[in-house]
Amino acid sequence: MIKAAIFDLDDTLYNSTELSTHARRSAIRAMIDLGLPVTFEEAYQVLTEVVKEFGSNYEYHFDQMLKRLGIGQHTKLYVSAGMIAYHDIKFTNIRPFHDAIPTFISLKKLEVKIIILTDGDALKQYEKILRLRLQDFLDDIIISEEVGIRKPNPKLFELPLQRANIQAREAIYIGDNYERDIVPCMKLGMRSVLIHRGGKYDQAKLKKIQKHPDYELTDLKDLIPIIKELNKKE
Amino acid sequence: MIKAAIFDLDDTLYNSTELSTHARRSAIRAMIDLGLPVTFEEAYQVLTEVVKEFGSNYEYHFDQMLKRLGIGQHTKLYVSAGMIAYHDIKFTNIRPFHDAIPTFISLKKLEVKIIILTDGDALKQYEKILRLRLQDFLDDIIISEEVGIRKPNPKLFELPLQRANIQAREAIYIGDNYERDIVPCMKLGMRSVLIHRGGKYDQAKLKKIQKHPDYELTDLKDLIPIIKELNKKE
Repeated sequence: MIKAAIFDLDDTLYNSTELSTHARRSAIRAMIDLGLPVTFEEAYQVLTEVVKEFGSNYEYHFDQMLKRLGIGQHTKLYVSAGMIAYHDIKFTNIRPFHDAIPTFISLKKLEVKIIILTDGDALKQYEKILRLRLQDFLDDIIISEEVGIRKPNPKLFELPLQRANIQAREAIYIGDNYERDIVPCMKLGMRSVLIHRGGKYDQAKLKKIQKHPDYELTDLKDLIPIIKELNKKE
Repeated sequence: MIKAAIFDLDDTLYNSTELSTHARRSAIRAMIDLGLPVTFEEAYQVLTEVVKEFGSNYEYHFDQMLKRLGIGQHTKLYVSAGMIAYHDIKFTNIRPFHDAIPTFISLKKLEVKIIILTDGDALKQYEKILRLRLQDFLDDIIISEEVGIRKPNPKLFELPLQRANIQAREAIYIGDNYERDIVPCMKLGMRSVLIHRGGKYDQAKLKKIQKHPDYELTDLKDLIPIIKELNKKE
């Protein structure tokens, strides 16, 4: 009996990678408009390197980009312009993937709890959840920074189970990242769904793995017949 | 000969106090909509106290407000909701006072440099300047955090003079705060204009002071005939 569906947030419920790319490109254009003496392509290449090296949740991408470009003047002005453009794009364009809300509504009808479990900074993740207007659907929200445990540590995945007082086999986890989302579920005996979302889905890499997720989907709505089938059996 | 007009930013070039009040009220409404179990009036009173005690540029007003209200659950969710509402109000409604841009245009015609000198966090102050779209008018921007000197230290007011290579008597400073804006100008021999902007203008207090600003204005545009008159004499 599946009692809870636990979702990753970024690139599972909304198009994080695509949106960040769009926002970063807009940020560079804003800095160049203000006089940053580099070409768009040069800056974008350096920024992409910085994001790759420091991780996408690092606070000072634009500062580091300016350092690498050898810019010593007006740096805070450029960073400010970049951040305005970045956030304006991100927060006026953030919306759930087309299949997210319909799936949530179906889960509500089935009386399956809906939980978000995500890595990242608490304020930033809550901001995304609120701007995506997901909050009224959610039975629980677990954010790494708030609990001091990060993916792929299985202890993080145990938390929502404890808080909802359910067993691992009564939950199904849906995420887009094999190592960080699926592997810990397997360790706990929680059912797992790998959702294929554009940029991050690497078919070649997945072919080589030994232990596959329980399910692989391209549309979140296909989760509903799976849960119905599982709940019929028990 | 007046060669530069140096402006304070908050409550001189835009209505900072009014906008912050509006934004804070909206933030509290957003937190209550999410389930914060207090009345609007109770929360607003506590927030006002916090802002007064910690200063308006403090980072954690909402966190402190929640502590005082005795809220221990979902605090980061509430803070996030409050910050979204606060910033959305602030940055969709920020605009220069009606008299700011006309005055800047007249100053440009007179070939008087336009400089902003403001206290505060560099990224935040640049964000305001950029969102107000003032940047193309400005010959220099000086922000306390970037130079390590705060108002009312006269050394801060010497910086724009040094950078523009002009004397104190060749500059006129326009601000809304007697102690922080006008007093240091008097110490340096820079001409000073106190601009009366709603909330912060305290007539009773000003009557008691001994040494008055060179000018007191209610409309920034009245700066232009003053400069013209001063420049005629020399």
